[in-house]
Amino acid sequence: MPVPGPGYSITVRVEAPPSTTAAGDLTTAIGRGGGVITAFDVVESHADRIVVDITCNALSADHASDLTGTLETLPGVRVRKVSDRTFLVHLGGKIEVAPRVALANRDDLSRAYTPGVARVCTAIAENPEDARRLTIKRNSVAVVTDGSAVLGLGNIGPEAALPVMEGKAALFKKFAGVNAWPVCLNTQDTEEIIRTVELIAPVYGGINLEDIAAPRCFEIEARLREKLNIPVFHDDQHGTAIVVLGALRNALRVVGKEITDCRIVVCGVGAAGSAIIRLLQHKKPADIIAVDIDGIVHGGRGDTDPNLRSIAAATNKDGRTGTLADAVRGADVFIGVSAPNLLSADDVATMNDNAIVFALANPDPEIDPLEAQKHATVVATGRSDYPNQINNVLAFPGVFRGLLDAHAHKITDDMMLAASNAIADVVDGERLNASFIVPSVFDSAVAPAVADAVKRAAIAARDDEEVPRGGSSLPFSMAEDIEY
Amino acid sequence: MPVPGPGYSITVRVEAPPSTTAAGDLTTAIGRGGGVITAFDVVESHADRIVVDITCNALSADHASDLTGTLETLPGVRVRKVSDRTFLVHLGGKIEVAPRVALANRDDLSRAYTPGVARVCTAIAENPEDARRLTIKRNSVAVVTDGSAVLGLGNIGPEAALPVMEGKAALFKKFAGVNAWPVCLNTQDTEEIIRTVELIAPVYGGINLEDIAAPRCFEIEARLREKLNIPVFHDDQHGTAIVVLGALRNALRVVGKEITDCRIVVCGVGAAGSAIIRLLQHKKPADIIAVDIDGIVHGGRGDTDPNLRSIAAATNKDGRTGTLADAVRGADVFIGVSAPNLLSADDVATMNDNAIVFALANPDPEIDPLEAQKHATVVATGRSDYPNQINNVLAFPGVFRGLLDAHAHKITDDMMLAASNAIADVVDGERLNASFIVPSVFDSAVAPAVADAVKRAAIAARDDEEVPRGGSSLPFSMAEDIEY
Repeated sequence: MPVPGPGYSITVRVEAPPSTTAAGDLTTAIGRGGGVITAFDVVESHADRIVVDITCNALSADHASDLTGTLETLPGVRVRKVSDRTFLVHLGGKIEVAPRVALANRDDLSRAYTPGVARVCTAIAENPEDARRLTIKRNSVAVVTDGSAVLGLGNIGPEAALPVMEGKAALFKKFAGVNAWPVCLNTQDTEEIIRTVELIAPVYGGINLEDIAAPRCFEIEARLREKLNIPVFHDDQHGTAIVVLGALRNALRVVGKEITDCRIVVCGVGAAGSAIIRLLQHKKPADIIAVDIDGIVHGGRGDTDPNLRSIAAATNKDGRTGTLADAVRGADVFIGVSAPNLLSADDVATMNDNAIVFALANPDPEIDPLEAQKHATVVATGRSDYPNQINNVLAFPGVFRGLLDAHAHKITDDMMLAASNAIADVVDGERLNASFIVPSVFDSAVAPAVADAVKRAAIAARDDEEVPRGGSSLPFSMAEDIEY
Repeated sequence: MPVPGPGYSITVRVEAPPSTTAAGDLTTAIGRGGGVITAFDVVESHADRIVVDITCNALSADHASDLTGTLETLPGVRVRKVSDRTFLVHLGGKIEVAPRVALANRDDLSRAYTPGVARVCTAIAENPEDARRLTIKRNSVAVVTDGSAVLGLGNIGPEAALPVMEGKAALFKKFAGVNAWPVCLNTQDTEEIIRTVELIAPVYGGINLEDIAAPRCFEIEARLREKLNIPVFHDDQHGTAIVVLGALRNALRVVGKEITDCRIVVCGVGAAGSAIIRLLQHKKPADIIAVDIDGIVHGGRGDTDPNLRSIAAATNKDGRTGTLADAVRGADVFIGVSAPNLLSADDVATMNDNAIVFALANPDPEIDPLEAQKHATVVATGRSDYPNQINNVLAFPGVFRGLLDAHAHKITDDMMLAASNAIADVVDGERLNASFIVPSVFDSAVAPAVADAVKRAAIAARDDEEVPRGGSSLPFSMAEDIEY
């Protein structure tokens, strides 16, 4: 049963009679209509009327409209204006570009712009690696989408995807000090996306692919990793996999199982499911069973999609066949990144004792978590209104902070596993329990812990790296790095 | 004779003996070496030594090195560290991306990100024009370069161009509140540049092309104007033309001439010269004589370049031929956007009385302004160390502020002329004289005046516009716009 939340918060400005009962009438009307009042402010008071701002949460846009309509039926009440607080937050965009340097006088201008800037340009022309020290490349990430798989909304195109990318950019800065900039591409052609990202890459120290539909996203990511000398991360794949593995590590601690003894069902083999399976393999679980819309993935299905074929080859040791229900019977862990209401409480009852259920479909999970809890010991979802929210914001800010600070040229599975462990380890033994397997998204310890783990893994990986580490031609003692 | 400027400012940390004469020895050494000390700070004092930070301006990087070397020859002095202040300003980049919204708690997150953001996405999917209200498109400009013609440095590539584009972005925000983001493209192919800008355009309300070599820049600009429904401005062309025309308007006021009586020589027909000629035509001067490396441009030269052919057709009514010296003889105005030292004082002496000379080649003008002043009444350059600096920063911030505020879909010559007049009119009659024909780049009245003029012109142009003005599907009373 949904409850009115701040995502549908409105402020209604009404004129009402100055009677002592007017305020009560207004609040009662909202309450009866199912709205939740969060603020009531008298903004004007006159002999013949008062003007009040009522701020309340509603269930939906239609519900907000109904509440406004209800107020208008009250005697002597006139609705002057309705502001939708969610839309207000987005007006004019959620991020901005700000100077980091003084530009107050001629001396400032001479250093930051002409003529001084020419020397900085020349230094980079002589040694391109210095762009990672002397420009925003040091701290900037492109958030790249084609708008083809945005939230649960699907293929809504680049303009409509922009509010999500801006929100992501705001989170990058808020949690990890990373400058992220939205790149919303007006094409859904794989080759054009790859080429465009390649062409804009000089400005960035990393690429975060976002909300690009599968299977296109796999090829784009793989090809860009070959072409670019900066890390390429697809948040829907790798961000999700990192957080899921961190949560699983803690869930297994709670139930006292080793992952090497566990059979894990992954329901959904799109971007997220595929990446989860790939990262899970490093942990050597007893088996992974992948399930898609056609049931259990196995080598005998004759799938032609390269992603499905590689999953079939890497999972399902015993060659199981059948439905999702067949897959979960006797399994230890269910990880759903698929669609609403695919799993029943009866299915969960057939799992091994101390079952772990991650039902991550958004906005509606594979199983209502209250149903899942009847037979599972640990339950997690993607929702913020249940315990154990699996949210990518736990991963991507810290991951890129670490990559940028290490001047990394690529991201490896080792770095992702390090990030995953770091998220898990923020929840110490005293706080760890079945309802608290991942830290809060607002826990300020998460991003620095992730960044540190990724930076260490990236620096350790340098010895294996084939890309030459450019020296610096900076004058005097300027080659030393800076901290953020 | 150049003087040490803040573009080559260094801070030297030295250890010196604690004698009473040590400080004097240090400053004397710098002064004798030709450096200009701007700060002298004792940072540590011990019984056996003092540690001093000496900040000074030098002529060049080599000169800075020499000064440091000189200090090291003093008895008992040891240079610990040298910091180049220009490089320090650039470390880590000169701009950043900052959130404009609160993200402190779950309610904030629900409005700015999921789930609330989904409604905003849906509104834009239904009416793409709403992206100009609900996203950064409202206030964002791409600063696009291929790094092929950067400052006087030439073809230095996208990474090395980035410090200039960042500086530009910082100026956009500082002077007009515009969010500008560098787009440095790793290609110099005309078709790829056009296609890439087209693909990234959804995020932006305008495109500022920058430091792209001629003649490629003409085709890129023209084709993008056809393809995009946001204004496309090439600063090297249009920004320069706007400021030059504004300065010329005031210069003519000073000498008391009407432009319709004037013969104007434009020396250089690259990006800037071509745009100046095109915009000047609206002012109907008596004649324009274009001059390039081959002398006076005329129809009989057999030029095949389309840009040169169109200039030949639109200028030089009397079919003059000859050299630059021939062109300026009897002319009223010289506008140089070409190369150093092409014009002699003797040439200027052959111009009409009350001659106007704009010698704008950077960093070294077509004629030393002190030489030009011998025979010209008004002299302007692109340099900050002479009066009358013709600087594009007078134009581009206000131009885009006006375009964005008008939700303009294109930029026209009328809007550029309006900007040009607005710059000129900031210099009121009381302040106007031969040494003050343009306002200071730090005059905070300029950008708002330009923005207002451009916005009015853009709104007036809407009646002629064929692009449909989208309505808004925003809920309730949210369709109203916001102010910056």
